[in-house]
Amino acid sequence: MTKIRALVWGENVHERTNEVVAGIYPDGMHACIAEALNASDRISAGTATLQEDEHGLTVERLAETDVLLWWGHCAHGEVSDEIVERVATAVHGGMGLIALHSAHFSKIFKRLMGTPCNLKWREAGERERLWVTAPRHPIVRGLPDHFELASEEMYGEPFGIPEPLETVLIGWFQGGEVFRSGVTYRRGVGNVFYFQPGHETYPTYHDENVRQVLRNAVEWAHNPAARIADPDAAPNVPVEEAPEKIEARGPRLHGEGEAGYR
Amino acid sequence: MTKIRALVWGENVHERTNEVVAGIYPDGMHACIAEALNASDRISAGTATLQEDEHGLTVERLAETDVLLWWGHCAHGEVSDEIVERVATAVHGGMGLIALHSAHFSKIFKRLMGTPCNLKWREAGERERLWVTAPRHPIVRGLPDHFELASEEMYGEPFGIPEPLETVLIGWFQGGEVFRSGVTYRRGVGNVFYFQPGHETYPTYHDENVRQVLRNAVEWAHNPAARIADPDAAPNVPVEEAPEKIEARGPRLHGEGEAGYR
Amino acid sequence: MTKIRALVWGENVHERTNEVVAGIYPDGMHACIAEALNASDRISAGTATLQEDEHGLTVERLAETDVLLWWGHCAHGEVSDEIVERVATAVHGGMGLIALHSAHFSKIFKRLMGTPCNLKWREAGERERLWVTAPRHPIVRGLPDHFELASEEMYGEPFGIPEPLETVLIGWFQGGEVFRSGVTYRRGVGNVFYFQPGHETYPTYHDENVRQVLRNAVEWAHNPAARIADPDAAPNVPVEEAPEKIEARGPRLHGEGEAGYR
Amino acid sequence: MTKIRALVWGENVHERTNEVVAGIYPDGMHACIAEALNASDRISAGTATLQEDEHGLTVERLAETDVLLWWGHCAHGEVSDEIVERVATAVHGGMGLIALHSAHFSKIFKRLMGTPCNLKWREAGERERLWVTAPRHPIVRGLPDHFELASEEMYGEPFGIPEPLETVLIGWFQGGEVFRSGVTYRRGVGNVFYFQPGHETYPTYHDENVRQVLRNAVEWAHNPAARIADPDAAPNVPVEEAPEKIEARGPRLHGEGEAGYR
Repeated sequence: MTKIRALVWGENVHERTNEVVAGIYPDGMHACIAEALNASDRISAGTATLQEDEHGLTVERLAETDVLLWWGHCAHGEVSDEIVERVATAVHGGMGLIALHSAHFSKIFKRLMGTPCNLKWREAGERERLWVTAPRHPIVRGLPDHFELASEEMYGEPFGIPEPLETVLIGWFQGGEVFRSGVTYRRGVGNVFYFQPGHETYPTYHDENVRQVLRNAVEWAHNPAARIADPDAAPNVPVEEAPEKIEARGPRLHGEGEAGYR
Repeated sequence: MTKIRALVWGENVHERTNEVVAGIYPDGMHACIAEALNASDRISAGTATLQEDEHGLTVERLAETDVLLWWGHCAHGEVSDEIVERVATAVHGGMGLIALHSAHFSKIFKRLMGTPCNLKWREAGERERLWVTAPRHPIVRGLPDHFELASEEMYGEPFGIPEPLETVLIGWFQGGEVFRSGVTYRRGVGNVFYFQPGHETYPTYHDENVRQVLRNAVEWAHNPAARIADPDAAPNVPVEEAPEKIEARGPRLHGEGEAGYR
Repeated sequence: MTKIRALVWGENVHERTNEVVAGIYPDGMHACIAEALNASDRISAGTATLQEDEHGLTVERLAETDVLLWWGHCAHGEVSDEIVERVATAVHGGMGLIALHSAHFSKIFKRLMGTPCNLKWREAGERERLWVTAPRHPIVRGLPDHFELASEEMYGEPFGIPEPLETVLIGWFQGGEVFRSGVTYRRGVGNVFYFQPGHETYPTYHDENVRQVLRNAVEWAHNPAARIADPDAAPNVPVEEAPEKIEARGPRLHGEGEAGYR
Repeated sequence: MTKIRALVWGENVHERTNEVVAGIYPDGMHACIAEALNASDRISAGTATLQEDEHGLTVERLAETDVLLWWGHCAHGEVSDEIVERVATAVHGGMGLIALHSAHFSKIFKRLMGTPCNLKWREAGERERLWVTAPRHPIVRGLPDHFELASEEMYGEPFGIPEPLETVLIGWFQGGEVFRSGVTYRRGVGNVFYFQPGHETYPTYHDENVRQVLRNAVEWAHNPAARIADPDAAPNVPVEEAPEKIEARGPRLHGEGEAGYR
């Protein structure tokens, strides 16, 4: 069986500059997440980081990626706009994308949502309990109807996202807030999942339920159909090739064979 | 009664450079559309064009606009990115937006959708028939269950948009294609409507059914609630202000009162 | 201005048989809810109860109702199936419906959703906090971004509903659960809103925020367009009346003018 | 590999009473559809018909069915209400359902949608062209961006369905109408797909593209997770078992361990 090719992109800053984060994720958060994915025999996961050439997201690398996972926080602004467009095009053509935690404010997630993607927040190590709102959804396969994280950053509503295709998980926070913690979208022909847990100062990506969600989400986001080569194409259909026989009439802006305006 | 303040933005290029377009819309397409809106005693519509300073879309002007209508085609690329962001922020804060015809490829519509917004097209003056798929929806109030346009540009599926909140109209084309011709979205707290008819070489905006849709859409898109001043805000909720009493614990990235990362 | 004609349907059992409920709602819950609605000068609300002839929901009464609110709990099974179909038809034709609290298990709500509409529950007088997830939505107009009820019955996810058109409110419960407390649907051409608070042993319908939601929801659910007389009609379009000229060909099941199968 | 267990339910009336239909489908439409499914090595399809005991849909049979396909037309009214509820419960628990053509008016489809499911129709043997509106969706895997049927019954908008989760296919008809020909839903935890082609006097289910859609739809609708045994359960969560420690307070309707009202 061909494995799903996942790529975990990590900002990889706090792991190197903050002792707490380095203690929890000595090889980087991306490595920990990739390890969680590789525990499945249906997934083959690698990593890429901000610091690599082209942030590790070359055209070739993306072409070989079925599902991209994205974790970023303090360095959203350092991600090149050109790379963001490249990733957006890959998603539009069929690559899956899983945006993790503080990636709600990543350029790529905002680019794909078209909305502010803002929220309330509080860093207090409080308890979170995630409730499944779409039982038997592929993303929560094998999970109980809720699970807890002893400490998470509070992310609270209103969350500035478009109405989701499906709301899969909702989070309850000890301090009194709620959050749509797992939501799905389709952008172009690519599947997109946002998953809220994952603050870097807590061991969230070591949690077995979280790891199961990540593996499930990769399988859900994977589209086995061939990637669309040019997802922005807006083809002209000449009169002679119209499905029904018609004759052109009236004035025209465009000469024969001219491209449309963009 | 306070009227809804509509603003019709027109690219205003072909009206001045193409005889056919100038003949149909001697004062510009934007003027014709504004006239259609002003036929309602609940709407007060003005115009703005690409050629004006800041494309006529100053901060002040947008602050006084309840619903913006956008028609552009050959000059999408000339619209300033800064103005596009300004309009997006206004929509996120509650301004309605109605994207017309070739505005499917406008920067602002693509910015708000997050998808390619591409389609098939053919300029052959063929007949289109628009079918209402959401009867009694405010946008089709007073309209028959279908209406025809003798000549329209064919726009054909697949249309590269997110799954709509509601599909209100679907177009049938003489040459054999179909198109989701009227679709709704919410972006931030602003209402967005895309409406397909309106090729500049045909008298579409003189059609009474089209004009009725435009008036209805302005009323639908108008949100009477106060505009959100900073729709991108991501407020911190300090521990002391948490709705439930909690005590902070564990390590923290952020010092007291520090802003979040963006 | 013509007022919106609301009708509050109450099961009206516990108000007469349980001292606690009678103490909070001496004139019945329906009367309290109607009073809340009549505080708006745009709404004129009456009441109907299970015990009346045809449960107070005659054909004539429904024809004069723009929005029906439904509260029921212990007597769901006593509601006549014929009346349920009558109400469903009214909704399909354009009447708004607001299902309150335990009406999640009412015949009419289940009839319109097509799903189990089940949930978790606990009657412990715990605190609930409702969070707005769709700011500036008409249903939350004038409300803060969250509000509290000192005591409510816990209703918890998973809630067996179809994916909502919009999720407007999510509830946080002291005991650790969450719930999609305000969700919208369209059924036929009628607008449907489910709103979770309202357990009969607590003074929920005396709460000013709850009353504001109810008034807003009535305005949102009201469709000013004329009611569809026969929302189940499946009209034949004879060949001669096809929008495009075609000639009939091939075998047929139906004779000229015959009705379709049902 | 375990195959997906599909069950094709056929009304099986016109095949035995109408010469044209019998000529096209000598073994019944259900047999032809099952044959199309069995052409996949990932599907194992059987059949059931109206005339069998319990319409061939015993509790045991449904328990062994992953995806049920439903074709009915002239005998919708002969299907037992009890069996309809049984099927609805199976869908709510996770069985997939594919409603075919005139099954838009079947009891089970109306039961699951909660809407009239009505439409326009014309039996004239006209040409239909189905356009993919959700490219790379699993249901259209391997299909071109449109395909034609030389003769189909016209089904026209407005189609009285809830807003779909996804609109996958839209049909263009020679006589001038359009139709949402392929739409998805989730009901309970079961996946539901409606697919419009399939009038019994035309050889639609012999068409290779249609057969591919059916196979794809079976794979899409199949939920490999275990069926929910009691999809209507509404469990009480006693105070002692609340996820967060709380103390019961205030009046109660229900005694300890009492079931909720239905």
